[in-house]
Amino acid sequence: MLEYLPALIGIIGLAVALLIFYLVMKEDPGTPEMVAIASYIQEGANAYMKRQFTTISYFIIALALLLFLLQGPLQGASFIAGAALSLIAAYIGMNAAVRANVRTANAARTSPAKALKIAFWGGSVMGLAVVSLSVAGIGLLYLISVGPNPSTSPEVLKELLHAIVPFGMGASLAALFAQLGGGIYTKAADIGADLVGKVELGIPEDDPRNPAVIADQVGDNVGDCAGRGADLFESFSDNILGMMVLGVTFFALHGLKGVLFPLLAESIGVISTIIAILLIREKSGNPVTTINISLFVAGVINAIGFYLLSVYLLNDIKVFYASLLGLVASLLVGAIVEYYTGYQHPPVRSIAKAAQSGPALDVIAGLAAGLESAFLPLIVISFVVVLSYWIAGLYGIAAATAGILSTTGIIMAADTFGPISDNAAGIAEMAGLSKEIRAGLDELDAVGNTTKAITKGYAMACALLSAFVLFSAYIESAGLVQSAAKVDLGEPMNLVGLIVGATLAFLFAALAIKAVGKTAEEMVQEVRRQFREIPGLREGKAKPDYARTVDIATKHALKEMILPTVISFAFPIAIGLLLGRRPLGSFIIGGTIAGGLLAVFMINAGGALDNAKKLIESGEYGGKGSEAHKAAVVGDTVGDPLKDTAGPSLHIFVKLIAIVALTFVALFPL
Amino acid sequence: MLEYLPALIGIIGLAVALLIFYLVMKEDPGTPEMVAIASYIQEGANAYMKRQFTTISYFIIALALLLFLLQGPLQGASFIAGAALSLIAAYIGMNAAVRANVRTANAARTSPAKALKIAFWGGSVMGLAVVSLSVAGIGLLYLISVGPNPSTSPEVLKELLHAIVPFGMGASLAALFAQLGGGIYTKAADIGADLVGKVELGIPEDDPRNPAVIADQVGDNVGDCAGRGADLFESFSDNILGMMVLGVTFFALHGLKGVLFPLLAESIGVISTIIAILLIREKSGNPVTTINISLFVAGVINAIGFYLLSVYLLNDIKVFYASLLGLVASLLVGAIVEYYTGYQHPPVRSIAKAAQSGPALDVIAGLAAGLESAFLPLIVISFVVVLSYWIAGLYGIAAATAGILSTTGIIMAADTFGPISDNAAGIAEMAGLSKEIRAGLDELDAVGNTTKAITKGYAMACALLSAFVLFSAYIESAGLVQSAAKVDLGEPMNLVGLIVGATLAFLFAALAIKAVGKTAEEMVQEVRRQFREIPGLREGKAKPDYARTVDIATKHALKEMILPTVISFAFPIAIGLLLGRRPLGSFIIGGTIAGGLLAVFMINAGGALDNAKKLIESGEYGGKGSEAHKAAVVGDTVGDPLKDTAGPSLHIFVKLIAIVALTFVALFPL
Repeated sequence: MLEYLPALIGIIGLAVALLIFYLVMKEDPGTPEMVAIASYIQEGANAYMKRQFTTISYFIIALALLLFLLQGPLQGASFIAGAALSLIAAYIGMNAAVRANVRTANAARTSPAKALKIAFWGGSVMGLAVVSLSVAGIGLLYLISVGPNPSTSPEVLKELLHAIVPFGMGASLAALFAQLGGGIYTKAADIGADLVGKVELGIPEDDPRNPAVIADQVGDNVGDCAGRGADLFESFSDNILGMMVLGVTFFALHGLKGVLFPLLAESIGVISTIIAILLIREKSGNPVTTINISLFVAGVINAIGFYLLSVYLLNDIKVFYASLLGLVASLLVGAIVEYYTGYQHPPVRSIAKAAQSGPALDVIAGLAAGLESAFLPLIVISFVVVLSYWIAGLYGIAAATAGILSTTGIIMAADTFGPISDNAAGIAEMAGLSKEIRAGLDELDAVGNTTKAITKGYAMACALLSAFVLFSAYIESAGLVQSAAKVDLGEPMNLVGLIVGATLAFLFAALAIKAVGKTAEEMVQEVRRQFREIPGLREGKAKPDYARTVDIATKHALKEMILPTVISFAFPIAIGLLLGRRPLGSFIIGGTIAGGLLAVFMINAGGALDNAKKLIESGEYGGKGSEAHKAAVVGDTVGDPLKDTAGPSLHIFVKLIAIVALTFVALFPL
Repeated sequence: MLEYLPALIGIIGLAVALLIFYLVMKEDPGTPEMVAIASYIQEGANAYMKRQFTTISYFIIALALLLFLLQGPLQGASFIAGAALSLIAAYIGMNAAVRANVRTANAARTSPAKALKIAFWGGSVMGLAVVSLSVAGIGLLYLISVGPNPSTSPEVLKELLHAIVPFGMGASLAALFAQLGGGIYTKAADIGADLVGKVELGIPEDDPRNPAVIADQVGDNVGDCAGRGADLFESFSDNILGMMVLGVTFFALHGLKGVLFPLLAESIGVISTIIAILLIREKSGNPVTTINISLFVAGVINAIGFYLLSVYLLNDIKVFYASLLGLVASLLVGAIVEYYTGYQHPPVRSIAKAAQSGPALDVIAGLAAGLESAFLPLIVISFVVVLSYWIAGLYGIAAATAGILSTTGIIMAADTFGPISDNAAGIAEMAGLSKEIRAGLDELDAVGNTTKAITKGYAMACALLSAFVLFSAYIESAGLVQSAAKVDLGEPMNLVGLIVGATLAFLFAALAIKAVGKTAEEMVQEVRRQFREIPGLREGKAKPDYARTVDIATKHALKEMILPTVISFAFPIAIGLLLGRRPLGSFIIGGTIAGGLLAVFMINAGGALDNAKKLIESGEYGGKGSEAHKAAVVGDTVGDPLKDTAGPSLHIFVKLIAIVALTFVALFPL
């Protein structure tokens, strides 16, 4: 009976997500002007999503066909399901977000607590959709491929499970598009809006005269919101799949239950997410406390769930210890990220201080802080890998990762809360709401920035550990653990695999950053042109042409992500075919470590530079309008493509190369 | 008899270096004003070197004592010899450079060809001192430890050679100090001089009113010149030592001759350097052609030498093929670096174009170009590793590296030519020489920048391949090749070694960049203070306090390099003791690949940003004084610590961790 539960719980979770969506929609969207602004954002976001679907569909068709021909119909279908469900989750979540934003702004006219509830509920649709659709999709595929068949042998089971693995590759493809395309979109628009608006003309953020302001708001949704949703959908799905594959290896120990464990464990994650969301009510007090309580409750429910599953299902308490280790590690990584990027702490203060000597030293200090910040998180992750392996073998590493990922739903909700309140503040500014209302929304926005920092550390830990789990599943599937032919670094061919994987991560990051730079340049030129050519725009007497900037961002974002996508798929396949399974193993590790380090460096450098600017804006080191502030704005802009495009996209890259290797392993010579 | 040759040739080479030094000294240093300026630089450079010697001596004594107690007196002596000879080479070379600069400036008053000759001969002292002292030192230690003993068994030989290995560690320690300390010094002074002088006050480069101008000139010598000399001394020595260790493994094939081969091969490098230097005469025409002919002749002599040694000494033509492969690869890496950093090519042009949209997009484009530029060089190096291994096993990888390194002397001469002509142009500016003379020297300076680009690619290839050779020697010495217990990435502990090594490279880079930032900040404040507080300074009526800025650079450079030095020694030893030999093996590889990639990224990003600024200064994309130019100056400054401090220091880091592991391998459990 247990095998029916995940699909069932997943579908219930989805129903709850849609119900919350309905409840949010029932709220009043406010004045006609607010509705009009919100509809610009909705249209821009939907136009982008539609064109993204068209572009991605070519890739989906081509790869599904390949899988169908090489491996069979179920593999092709799994792949399509993974991509489609990821896109659907992002679509539902983003649509809820672009409707919750204006309702949050309007609710702020009544009470701050109500605004908080609507923003959080709006984010919850994304959080719940992500985990529910992942569990439902993999659960259903499991029923189709394996079915309620407790007497299967490990060999047959391995075969059957491999038909589901392409689900993860589909999720990876969708995530790459969402995160990379969305990241290019959002940062190009943001830079274009800021450089001309704030720096050159001195008009405020979110000023409706700025032609790039709508593109910027759309970007928050397609980048931060849809992008991170797809990222976590991928980590979540990859880990379930990787752990199921490893469950076969541990068949002697846990039997079929070891294969079902990850699905059931993450089903508990769906339930805990629902309970934690419903804790956010209007009567709540301090917003940070409210959200923290909700996260804490979800964590406790998950821990209890893992305990029960470990003891009563697997009869192996060690799996519970490993999963707890994962939970603790994610908190530690979050704390380290907070130290390096929070304004209270020395790294950000020293960047702000350096800004007093000009933009160059501000950027130098930010890059140094980012590089330094990679050290401790990776040490923490190393400890998790070693300790969880020591506790329960490769299955233990997967259990630790499952422990972290069980809170995905609620973390994602808290994260999507960020762009919603950011958008709400923007809409309030554009619609000219009163100063007090805007101050309340700005406070909510600040809360969103704090939750974002936590989520970033969380997404890092999830991505890296998921990649290691996939690597473990890969070397199991490739027969490299038992054989004498290991992934030995003394073998030059394996060294080459490692080098190519690592340097490919650098190339991938380069392409992402270059894409933002090129698009932003065009955006800057277009915004300058509109201010020059549209009479009365600067005085607020004429309307800017929002559609042109939205179009530039959309077109470039989709064009520039083709090449990174192609190399991410082509390289692991080429290495596997040309050099074989062992160099492909080291290729995955090279890509994971270099990609992971670059991601931490870039995300934290960008975050620290951003907050150094905010610290100066709060009045320290010269305050708003000073030379130091101008320097810090340059630094923040340099950090933008690092922290919101290349960094998070590298998370997808590290998982993608591993899942591609795992999917096609049978093709590659030993 | 053959075993006496290296020491003999090394000593002859040193004598020739001193003779050239004498010939340079005989030239006229020019007007009293020029002599006075040059003496400031000489005093600043010597004051720095003296304090550096004091600081490094503590490390030398401590580590020599450790080696003496743990391994024996010869090991301690080898270590001291490696460090001392590296320091002596840098000291002689730098002293020649700080005397050749003013004589070059003076010679330019007579003829450009004479200026070229003096600058190149001045650089040759460094080039020749580096290769001669390395060959002489290792050659003598070989005679002391092994001696003319053709009947030694491989086991005994291995023991005897291991007593010489600490020579490499000594060279690494000296190199780290020279490159990191020198890098911090030169860039802090450079940034301080530029940000206040050029950007804030609009006075020209090398203007004598700028209080940081002397520190900047000193920095060129202690950083670019002494630093790179020590770097190549280390690569050169490490490769000889690593290949000798591998020679024991191939004892059955080549006998004792395989151990002597690297020493003899590099002795040929000394001879070819002498011949190539003497080709640079006054009657020469175009400076670039002159230098290229000289490089070409050295390359051809070395190729012939390798052929003769391979065929007649080893009776194994494959070793020759592998070494040729190395030579070709270094040319390819040089060409790639030139593509990414030369102004004629698209990457630099696109950075200059981006500068038109402000400093942030200039920096973003530069970072992207740097990240992208890491891909192809690493692919080339991968090919070298695989092909040379395929041709002649691990010994082949070492032979390929020896092939590259045989041209070290002449490359180093061409490289040191850079800071000498840069200094000469600065002295001419400060001494108020005529416009035509300065134009001639600026042309020579431009030639220096071209040769520098070649050297950078060269140093990269050398450092990475030397590190791989040391790794091969390490796994041989650690008994990991034959044993079943390989450096298998499927083993979580080895994965952890890899992660820690990689992330340590990030931490190392962070500390180097932060040191420059902090020192530069203080420099900026001091230069601003002098302009504010010294009456008449801006009008040229009063003299600045050069000594204060020299002191700031010296003090900080020495203080800030302690921590990076300590971690570079402590981590490999700690990993070896705590986790054992296999995780230490993957630690080396993790550090090498991450460090190597970061180095290429940083050196090329900085180089491209520098040349984008120069492209704009040449009149394109707005020209000097435009907004784009100001943006490009910011970008250049951001690139400074990347390209001249962190990047080159990472070269040392990758070799250092490997040689420390190799030196102490006997201490570590399997």
